[in-house]
Amino acid sequence: MEEVRMEKLYEGKAKIIYPSSEAGMVRVYFKDDATAFNGQKRAQIAGKGAVNNQIASALFGYLEEHGIPTHFVRQLSEREMLVRQVQIVPLEVIVRNRTAGTFARRYGVEEGRVLPKPLLEFSYKNDALGDPLIYPEAALALGLLSEAELERIRALALQINTLLKDYFAQRNLELVDFKLEFGRLADGRLVLADEISPDTMRLWEMGSGEKMDKDRFRRDLGGVEEAYQEVLRRVQGL
Amino acid sequence: MEEVRMEKLYEGKAKIIYPSSEAGMVRVYFKDDATAFNGQKRAQIAGKGAVNNQIASALFGYLEEHGIPTHFVRQLSEREMLVRQVQIVPLEVIVRNRTAGTFARRYGVEEGRVLPKPLLEFSYKNDALGDPLIYPEAALALGLLSEAELERIRALALQINTLLKDYFAQRNLELVDFKLEFGRLADGRLVLADEISPDTMRLWEMGSGEKMDKDRFRRDLGGVEEAYQEVLRRVQGL
Repeated sequence: MEEVRMEKLYEGKAKIIYPSSEAGMVRVYFKDDATAFNGQKRAQIAGKGAVNNQIASALFGYLEEHGIPTHFVRQLSEREMLVRQVQIVPLEVIVRNRTAGTFARRYGVEEGRVLPKPLLEFSYKNDALGDPLIYPEAALALGLLSEAELERIRALALQINTLLKDYFAQRNLELVDFKLEFGRLADGRLVLADEISPDTMRLWEMGSGEKMDKDRFRRDLGGVEEAYQEVLRRVQGL
Repeated sequence: MEEVRMEKLYEGKAKIIYPSSEAGMVRVYFKDDATAFNGQKRAQIAGKGAVNNQIASALFGYLEEHGIPTHFVRQLSEREMLVRQVQIVPLEVIVRNRTAGTFARRYGVEEGRVLPKPLLEFSYKNDALGDPLIYPEAALALGLLSEAELERIRALALQINTLLKDYFAQRNLELVDFKLEFGRLADGRLVLADEISPDTMRLWEMGSGEKMDKDRFRRDLGGVEEAYQEVLRRVQGL
């Protein structure tokens, strides 16, 4: 009886996790809700849930094809995907190719400076603390993950960056930065989890540098729905 | 005419830099002013300047004897020391042996947890930005220092930690954490600069864990002058 809306396992800012009848699986439901600046700015972006579900499904599929283990199983419906249940590693893994967003603000530098090599940063996933930047050595000391997991995450994040940069370059979009989360399967293996969408990436139109991501919402640039739709169109168009 | 107060080269929160008649040197004058929480809390601690000048002079001397290059030349008077002029690397280098202070607050952990190994953190020296935590890779990308300088600073900071931990253990004080700054001499060589004193270290009485440092001021614990004096007494007493 998949039609019956079951009890939520977890509700986040942009997604709800529901149980699945399939063993070891859960359903991810993508909401239209958008938040920014650690929840201080909130709104709805019409159709975002459906768009992000389709983009994330396509990107997880692409990464799996290229050897990246993910939690993704299959798209279930317009707003739902089936994923393997994981225990989330409480770190946001940020990969930066250019200065932008938090990084530019934090260090008082302009946006768009190309970094000499991709920069990997971690923040401690903790809303009450404001998701503070954390050194990998500190994350180890606090027991947030093991040394082997850290090395695996580093390697996967850099591989994913290379794969996604290529993917979007073919679609005339530059991948400026993005956030990943990883999870542990029941057997302890790490897989890419959460989502990859214009909510969690910065994508700039090549040439013009026009923002095609959540910054349109954060900075009140207008055309938010249209940008998300355009990213989906290009994801599906190739 | 060393008696004539010359024009200030620079005034910081706790120190003033004056020119010296000796080539390539400057005089550091230690003030009684104390600030905390990025300048939000301010006061005077009677006699602090004289105490910190004496403690810092003793510690720089000790480190020099053990092969650490510093800017220190000699103590000039109760509140002044002569140092080599340097260009400061705009990073605060923090070494932590136990969780405390900013680290404990930032990650919501209790104070006093022993770290499995000394943790080195860098913050970008920039008052307007609030001295934000910065990854070494980001400091390199922003051109704050070279890769060779970073490696040298890492090695020196860990050596200094070992030396100071021993030094204070012999004086029944535990070195919990401390902040260092490094500077470039005219020929580019890196030396330890700024100061090392109860303003820039956390020292806990062994056994009782009583705070013998600037936390007495930050947290209104009372007995600030007495704690600084006691640290000086132990520095001089051995």
